[in-house]
Amino acid sequence: MKVANLVGQRFKEKPSDCVIDSHALMVRGGFMKYVGNGIYSEFPVLRRITAKIENIIRKEMDAIDGQEVLFPVVLPAVLWEESGRYESIGNELVRFKDRNGSNHVLGMTHEEAAVQLVREYAQSYTKYPFMIYQIQRKFRDEARPRAGMIRVREFTMKDAYSFHTSQEDLDRYYKICFQAYNRIFQKVGVPEVVTVKSDSGIMGGSVSHEYMLLTPVGEDSIVICNECDYSSNMEAAENIVENTKADSDKLLCVETPNCKTIEDVCAFLKSDVKTSCKAVVYQKNIDDKFVVAFVRGDYEVNETKLRNLVGGEIHTAEITADDCLVAGYIGPYGISNEVEFYIDVSLKGIGNIVAGANKEGYHYTGLDLERDLENVNYVDISKIKEGGICPCCKKSAITIKRGIEVGNIFQLGTKYTETMNMQYTDENGESHYPIMGCYGIGVGRLAASVCEVHHDEYGPIWPISIAPWEVQICCLRADDEDTKQVADKLYKDLTDIGIEALYDDRQVRPGVMFSDADLIGVPIRVIISPRNLKESSVEITTRDKSIKTMVSVEEAAEYIKNLRLKLFADIESHVQDYK
Amino acid sequence: MKVANLVGQRFKEKPSDCVIDSHALMVRGGFMKYVGNGIYSEFPVLRRITAKIENIIRKEMDAIDGQEVLFPVVLPAVLWEESGRYESIGNELVRFKDRNGSNHVLGMTHEEAAVQLVREYAQSYTKYPFMIYQIQRKFRDEARPRAGMIRVREFTMKDAYSFHTSQEDLDRYYKICFQAYNRIFQKVGVPEVVTVKSDSGIMGGSVSHEYMLLTPVGEDSIVICNECDYSSNMEAAENIVENTKADSDKLLCVETPNCKTIEDVCAFLKSDVKTSCKAVVYQKNIDDKFVVAFVRGDYEVNETKLRNLVGGEIHTAEITADDCLVAGYIGPYGISNEVEFYIDVSLKGIGNIVAGANKEGYHYTGLDLERDLENVNYVDISKIKEGGICPCCKKSAITIKRGIEVGNIFQLGTKYTETMNMQYTDENGESHYPIMGCYGIGVGRLAASVCEVHHDEYGPIWPISIAPWEVQICCLRADDEDTKQVADKLYKDLTDIGIEALYDDRQVRPGVMFSDADLIGVPIRVIISPRNLKESSVEITTRDKSIKTMVSVEEAAEYIKNLRLKLFADIESHVQDYK
Repeated sequence: MKVANLVGQRFKEKPSDCVIDSHALMVRGGFMKYVGNGIYSEFPVLRRITAKIENIIRKEMDAIDGQEVLFPVVLPAVLWEESGRYESIGNELVRFKDRNGSNHVLGMTHEEAAVQLVREYAQSYTKYPFMIYQIQRKFRDEARPRAGMIRVREFTMKDAYSFHTSQEDLDRYYKICFQAYNRIFQKVGVPEVVTVKSDSGIMGGSVSHEYMLLTPVGEDSIVICNECDYSSNMEAAENIVENTKADSDKLLCVETPNCKTIEDVCAFLKSDVKTSCKAVVYQKNIDDKFVVAFVRGDYEVNETKLRNLVGGEIHTAEITADDCLVAGYIGPYGISNEVEFYIDVSLKGIGNIVAGANKEGYHYTGLDLERDLENVNYVDISKIKEGGICPCCKKSAITIKRGIEVGNIFQLGTKYTETMNMQYTDENGESHYPIMGCYGIGVGRLAASVCEVHHDEYGPIWPISIAPWEVQICCLRADDEDTKQVADKLYKDLTDIGIEALYDDRQVRPGVMFSDADLIGVPIRVIISPRNLKESSVEITTRDKSIKTMVSVEEAAEYIKNLRLKLFADIESHVQDYK
Repeated sequence: MKVANLVGQRFKEKPSDCVIDSHALMVRGGFMKYVGNGIYSEFPVLRRITAKIENIIRKEMDAIDGQEVLFPVVLPAVLWEESGRYESIGNELVRFKDRNGSNHVLGMTHEEAAVQLVREYAQSYTKYPFMIYQIQRKFRDEARPRAGMIRVREFTMKDAYSFHTSQEDLDRYYKICFQAYNRIFQKVGVPEVVTVKSDSGIMGGSVSHEYMLLTPVGEDSIVICNECDYSSNMEAAENIVENTKADSDKLLCVETPNCKTIEDVCAFLKSDVKTSCKAVVYQKNIDDKFVVAFVRGDYEVNETKLRNLVGGEIHTAEITADDCLVAGYIGPYGISNEVEFYIDVSLKGIGNIVAGANKEGYHYTGLDLERDLENVNYVDISKIKEGGICPCCKKSAITIKRGIEVGNIFQLGTKYTETMNMQYTDENGESHYPIMGCYGIGVGRLAASVCEVHHDEYGPIWPISIAPWEVQICCLRADDEDTKQVADKLYKDLTDIGIEALYDDRQVRPGVMFSDADLIGVPIRVIISPRNLKESSVEITTRDKSIKTMVSVEEAAEYIKNLRLKLFADIESHVQDYK
């Protein structure tokens, strides 16, 4: 392919709507094009990358006995009604009526379709275990698409579904898939991906892991222990708080004028925020009933844990004067009976707590939850903090990092097989629901994430395994006949031996040629110029700047061939053999 | 892959809802699964076939300088409003609102997305010509999905879009693409595909061709001349009728009681149906206004040609007593001024016509259109018939066949670039709209069509180039240790030399094993049994029954390797080099 013919424009200016580097570089480099909110087209350069990622994934899925299938993008609502998700999922699920008025949805995941495909096939225990997967477009109507291809509404995803007759067998296969995922990320060129325990969310099930590419621009908070190998998504991380209790004074209701936040109150009362009780108010989506989360003043509510406890979707509350809650002055003592509330573990074992008095302009001091409330039940609904206690080794060694979720694996259990009545008969003729696992990787997001962690100010630095081309030939002075001849020949020689070469023979300034090459991010670069040819040499560099050398014209193709193999070997060296 | 692990069940009974063989066989063979009306999942066997078809297409598109891109399935309505198709397309286009109330559509073709992708890139004439393509899911809300994967609502399609600065250049590239399409069908293993001129329909543009796989179950009628190389889709075929005129009698209004059809009338009046005038009544979708098509009694209306003439969608009329038309008695003489009507060429040059009198229970006889009507304008709105006159060589040599459309190519002109304001600057600094071509192939429909024309009563007979596997090993008596050992070894040997083998080592009756193999349709079959092994041989057959031979165990792998190459060579022998 010649750069002159490559569809997709490159430009210098950083687009104003790009908040992270990878997004800006992939727009500037002619990789992607905005079509609508969270909807993009892929230019040829990106399509080559995503195709390579798809093939790496496909090979690993086949290697663990996966069988590729294809589910539809559009699914009849009846399928989702069977599982109950037609009702339980919110606006992310696109629902529409077809020309006959039948309800349909756009597949955002395909558990229902997977069960529907195999429930007649897999009626005997002899058919198990098996795994099916697809690589297919999905649409999820995200409230806030952001960061280019990192969080979009439409995306290509590899989603796999495994079926088992016992939890042990699922555990066994889950581990195999866990390792296959590690190999995928290693082969794609991002061995730095970490795995974390995660919250299963709308997928149901219990055990689940996320694959996180660590980067400060990631939207997920990841909890990592510096002392043991514990790691977790913030959403799923248990928060352990050890408080030392002082004897409580008498419970007093004091005036706290104009103190709307817990910080205001503590400053006014000159008390430590660590002995205060903060109220965060939500409403249930289903009936707008209030749910109050009480946490220690210096902690934040972990909404995922709260949501799981409430057992349904919640949203930030809007409190009016007519409500049974007094905004800014809500506390656990004397709160209205109508309100569902939860007290976080961070409030356990403290005395002399400052808390809202459920009365405009007043707070309590000297509150002692165990003394003043009946049957206090502490629950874990707060976010773990930097330096917090590791739930695994119990040392105060927690550090919080940010990452992009590039894959996830779930143990689904029988949620879908039960609701959709998929059963098999065992050796004794008894019926059971098979146990499922599911395993996803977003292809476009992975491409963008690699760019995010592998780039410099000039452009992406693609690992050779997913690079759009392996070599870029820059012919400086294509108007010089000799130079052009050498470049043409090298392009032909490389192509003939199966090396993917991108050839820039445009008559443009070297600066333009090099900045374009940087923006495309091909790992190996050959520079052919009249000056180099005076010494019968070409210059060979790598995009990551680790190599910059002169090679004779005759040896160039051979050198590139070996360099290419070395770059692949470097990637393979990270690929662990788990078998 | 072992048959024992292959996801997808096979069964004997023909499903009651399958009207064509390929549909029944692909359901019975575990290829596809009904999900909803016109919506199917692909089991692993079919996914392997469609993946091979996709790769054949991809190679040919790359070979004619196509660059693969990816457009979204979900498109913002604003894009389709730019081209005007958001309004002009009917119910086939799925429209829905996202969570923010923005209108979106599901892509049923991607002209708008293609223009949107490249209109900033291709602002200079130096960027032309170029072609981009994708292989992507599409959804078209068909009124009547039918025949399994032949006419569905959701499908995988390769759609390509080329951009040019002159009609000459489009003509040049159109020919190249025309030939690439021929190569694709030849490589897929259906060299019997014919090309026909077609109606461009909703795509706009003028020149267009369809690739038709001839089969009696096809839903398209194809007009072929036995004397010259004329061929056309019925929709686009010009109808030439030569009438010999008799002198007309006097126009008489006669009573024709209880004669509702033109055949009734002619029988009652003892006149030839070839001198009768039949009225077929439609209404415009836009305002329900009546449109009457008058054709000679023995001809049918070609609704596509009528639609093009009317310039909008039409539907079969419902006439009530209040309307200005008298159902069953409509004729061109004395018809209400309110009615738009067209007179077909088949009525030209006849005398003594029998036609409705626009009065309940009455017809005219002796009608002479040129004599009795003012300014008769004959238009071509009828279907050509078997034995009709060829529009090309003018001989009465027309034959009508049926076929399935497996691909199409269109010259789009500037319809989309003009409406969406895509312009480029030429060498003199002047702005122009680029000229487009577009080129589609439905992947699933092609797979099903191949099955339809290549099957027997027992199952599909896949060409080796798209077969799910190349070889199927049937181990009869897998409980016999020696037999199993030979079969295992051959499976390993074939796999090791890169031959795709499906291995059936189930302990089932030979009848079950063979009927399953027939249903899967793998081209080469090896039968290993204790009986054959007594003579140190295995039996090798082909699915099409052309080969059935005994080969020694030692030579089996080599024989299969050569047979495989021969089958591929047979396919290649049909591939013409057009360059």
